[in-house]
Amino acid sequence: MLREDQLSLNIPAATKPRVVIVGGGFGGLNLAKKLSNKDFQVVMFDRQNYHGFWPLLYQVATAGLEPDAIAEPLRKIFGSDDYQDFHFRLVKVKGIDPTTKTVHTLIGDMHYDYLVVATGTKSNYFGNDQIKKYSFPLKQIPDALNLRSQLLQSFEQASMTKNPEIRQSLLNIVIVGGGPTGVELAGALAEMRQHVLPTDYPGLDFSQMNIYLVEGLDRVLPPMSAEASVKTKKYLEEMDIIIKLNTLVESYDGNVATLKNGDQIRTQTLIWAAGVSGALIDGMPQESVERGRILVNQYNQVQGVEDVYAIGDIALMKSEEFPKGHPGVAQPAIQQGQLLAKNLDRLVRNEPLEPFKYFDKGSLAIIGRNRAVADLPGNKTIGGFFAWAIWLFVHIAYLVGFRNKLVVVSNWLYRFFTYERGTRLIIRPFVRKGDRVKRKFFDQYDTDA
Amino acid sequence: MLREDQLSLNIPAATKPRVVIVGGGFGGLNLAKKLSNKDFQVVMFDRQNYHGFWPLLYQVATAGLEPDAIAEPLRKIFGSDDYQDFHFRLVKVKGIDPTTKTVHTLIGDMHYDYLVVATGTKSNYFGNDQIKKYSFPLKQIPDALNLRSQLLQSFEQASMTKNPEIRQSLLNIVIVGGGPTGVELAGALAEMRQHVLPTDYPGLDFSQMNIYLVEGLDRVLPPMSAEASVKTKKYLEEMDIIIKLNTLVESYDGNVATLKNGDQIRTQTLIWAAGVSGALIDGMPQESVERGRILVNQYNQVQGVEDVYAIGDIALMKSEEFPKGHPGVAQPAIQQGQLLAKNLDRLVRNEPLEPFKYFDKGSLAIIGRNRAVADLPGNKTIGGFFAWAIWLFVHIAYLVGFRNKLVVVSNWLYRFFTYERGTRLIIRPFVRKGDRVKRKFFDQYDTDA
Repeated sequence: MLREDQLSLNIPAATKPRVVIVGGGFGGLNLAKKLSNKDFQVVMFDRQNYHGFWPLLYQVATAGLEPDAIAEPLRKIFGSDDYQDFHFRLVKVKGIDPTTKTVHTLIGDMHYDYLVVATGTKSNYFGNDQIKKYSFPLKQIPDALNLRSQLLQSFEQASMTKNPEIRQSLLNIVIVGGGPTGVELAGALAEMRQHVLPTDYPGLDFSQMNIYLVEGLDRVLPPMSAEASVKTKKYLEEMDIIIKLNTLVESYDGNVATLKNGDQIRTQTLIWAAGVSGALIDGMPQESVERGRILVNQYNQVQGVEDVYAIGDIALMKSEEFPKGHPGVAQPAIQQGQLLAKNLDRLVRNEPLEPFKYFDKGSLAIIGRNRAVADLPGNKTIGGFFAWAIWLFVHIAYLVGFRNKLVVVSNWLYRFFTYERGTRLIIRPFVRKGDRVKRKFFDQYDTDA
Repeated sequence: MLREDQLSLNIPAATKPRVVIVGGGFGGLNLAKKLSNKDFQVVMFDRQNYHGFWPLLYQVATAGLEPDAIAEPLRKIFGSDDYQDFHFRLVKVKGIDPTTKTVHTLIGDMHYDYLVVATGTKSNYFGNDQIKKYSFPLKQIPDALNLRSQLLQSFEQASMTKNPEIRQSLLNIVIVGGGPTGVELAGALAEMRQHVLPTDYPGLDFSQMNIYLVEGLDRVLPPMSAEASVKTKKYLEEMDIIIKLNTLVESYDGNVATLKNGDQIRTQTLIWAAGVSGALIDGMPQESVERGRILVNQYNQVQGVEDVYAIGDIALMKSEEFPKGHPGVAQPAIQQGQLLAKNLDRLVRNEPLEPFKYFDKGSLAIIGRNRAVADLPGNKTIGGFFAWAIWLFVHIAYLVGFRNKLVVVSNWLYRFFTYERGTRLIIRPFVRKGDRVKRKFFDQYDTDA
C-alpha cells in the first residue's frame, strides 16, 4: 500500500490536443471510443477500473448475476490497438482550475486542452443523514453486493429467531423510490419470494415477507408514460408488492421506517432508490451549477469556462423539448458522448459544431418474468411478454463485451427455465455505516477478524 | 442488524437421533448428503452459507472465475425434498461440552446425540504476527477477492509512478509455499503476465514483473511424487517463475520480505500459502489434539469423548500407511464423510462399524495452459496436456452444481481459445489489516466514503 506522494499521473507528453475525460460511464466511454480514432490524446480518470451496465445492477443485488456479467474492465475495452494514445488512470479527480486549464487529482495535477466532466450521479438523501447512515443504496457494484448479503443474511437470521416481531422486521423489505431501479428491484424480489426462497428456507413462511415500494409522486415509473405507469402498477400488485404512492419516508433508524403520514414499518432493510444528484467536481463556475448538475449549452459546453464540457447525467441541457434536461438514462449520455467526439474533432478543424438532438429510442422496465413495459418511439406503450422480450434483447445488445453477453444470456435462460438463481452467496459481512459500532454478531463471518 | 441475544438456533425438536455437523466443506457436505436419507435429524452449522470448491480458489484470485463458479449455496444443495429433517444455521460454533453433549454457538446452546467436527483448516503463520498482518492469505472467497483487487491495484499503481524502485516493489509478487495452491497460483499469474497484462497496461514493461515461489522444503509440491515435483519445477521455470527452495521467509513488513538467508525482496504483495493448522473448537480433550488437529481412530471417533467425531483436514487419523495422517486434500474428507454416514447408521442399528480405508484416486496440479502433472494410482506420474485434460475433467466432475459446471466450462473454453480473463474487476478496496491505518489513498475508491 502506497501513499499518494509516492505516485504520480505519469501520462506521456501530449503530441496532439489532450482531452481529459472524468468518468468511464456511458458518456465517457462512448466519447473516448469515438475520440481515440481521431487526432487527440485521450486521458480517462475513474475511481473504478470498470465500465458498469447499471440498468442490470439490481440483478446483482438479487443474486441473479455476478458482477462480471454487468461490468467490463475499462483497460480491456481500450486494450486494442485502435486506442494508441489512450491513457487510463485509476484515480479520483478533485477538481479543475479552468484559468490554468489544470485538472487536480489525488496524486497530482495535469494540463488539459479539453476537459469533459462525465461523472454521472450519486445517491441523494436530501440531507437526511440518518437515512444515509442506515439505508442501503443501489448505485454501484459494491452497493449491490452489500444489499445481496444483507437480504440473504436477513433470511438466515429470520430463521434464527422465535420472536415474531423481530422475524417480521427481517422479512419486511422497504424500497424507497418507484423509479426503474425500485420497480425492477421489487419485481426481482417478488420472483425470489415466489420461486427461490421457500425451498431455501423451508422453516420460514414467506407469505409473511412484505415488499414495500414507497414513491413520493402519484405514480410509479414517473419518467415513463402514464400508460406504462398504470400497467406497471397492475403488474406489481399482481405480484403482491405493497405500493405506497404520494408517500415520503421521514426517518429510518435502522429498525423502524417512519413515513410522513406517521405510519411505521419495522424493517432491517431499507433500500434507498429515491433520488440522485450530480457527482460534481470542484472548479465549476457557480452560475453553471443548478440542482447539483452542470448547465451546458446545446454543444455540451459549460458556460463561463473555456474548453470544459459536461455530458450524461451530470449535464443539464435545457431545451424546449426538455425544459428540465434529458432523462437520466443511458441513451442521452451515449448520444452526447458520441456527438461531442465529432464536435471536438470539428473544433480543432475550425468546422461548425453540430447541436445535440436527443433521439429517443424509447424506454423499458422489467417487472418480472414475462412482465415488462415499454414506451416505444411514437408514444406507443406496450406490456407483457413482448415488452419483456424487447427488454431482454435491448439489454443484451447494449451490454459491452461479447463475454458479458454470453454470461448474461446463459444466466437468464438458465433462470428462465429453472427459476433458479445461481449466486446466493454471502461473500462477506457488508454492514451499514450505522451498524459499524455493533459489528460483533457479523464479525463471526469476518474472515479478516 | 441484530444482537446475538435477539437470535436463537430455533431448531425443531428431534424425533430421531440428532447429528450436529460443524462445517459444510467436503467432509461435512458428503456426510450430510448420505445421512439425510437415513433416520437422523441433521443440523449443520457453518460461518459461510456456501460450500466452496477450494481447489479452484486461485482462479478467483487471478480473475479467471467469479465466486459463483466455485461455490454453491448450502441451502440450495440441501433444498430438495430428499433432505426433510436437515437444518442449516449460519452461525459460529464456539465449542462443545461433551459431558452434557451440548454444542455452544454464538446464539445459544443445543443438545446433540452425535457431533461431527468438520471445520477444516485455517492459515498457519507459525506465530509470525507481522506476516499475518501484512500478507495475503488464500483460504476463502473473500481472501481471493482481496488478492485479486490487490494484484490489479498494484498494476494500476505501477503505471502511476516514475520511481523504478517503487514500481518494482509493485511488480514483484512473492508466493510463500510451494504446495498445490502456491504452484497453481504462480502458474496462473505467469499466464496473466504473458497473455493479459501487457495489453491491459501498455505503459508497463512486464518483463520486470517477477513471480517468486518460495518453498521451505527441497522440492515443490511436496505432497506429490518426486517425479511430479521435477516435472512441475521444469514447467514453472519454463514460465519464468523464480523458484527458491529450502528457503524460509523470516519477516515481511508490507514493503520488504526478508528471507532466512538474509536476501530481501521488495514487494507490495506477499501471498501466504505456506501452511495451515486445524480450525479447532473448544471442548476437545487435551490428549486428542496434536499439532492443531484432532486425533481420531479408524472410525473417525475422537478418543476420550463420547459420540464426537472428526473428519477431513481437521482429523488426524494415523495408520501404518499414513503415519502422519492423510493428505490435506478433498478425497480423504469426502470418503470419511461418506463412510461416517454409513457407520452412524450402523451404530444406531448396533451393527459393527467399518474402519476407514483411504482410496487414493491420485493427485493433480495444473501449472498453466497445457501444463499439468498427475500422480495416478499405481505410482504412475504423467505430465503435459494429457495431465491437464485429466485435471480439467476431474475438477469439472467434482464441482457441485450443474450450473457451476456450466459456468466453469464456458469460462475455461472461452479463456483457452481467447487467452482472455473476464473478471478483472477491482470491486472494492480490500486492504491488509496492517494497512488499515493508512487507508487514505484507497478511501478514494471506497463507495462507502
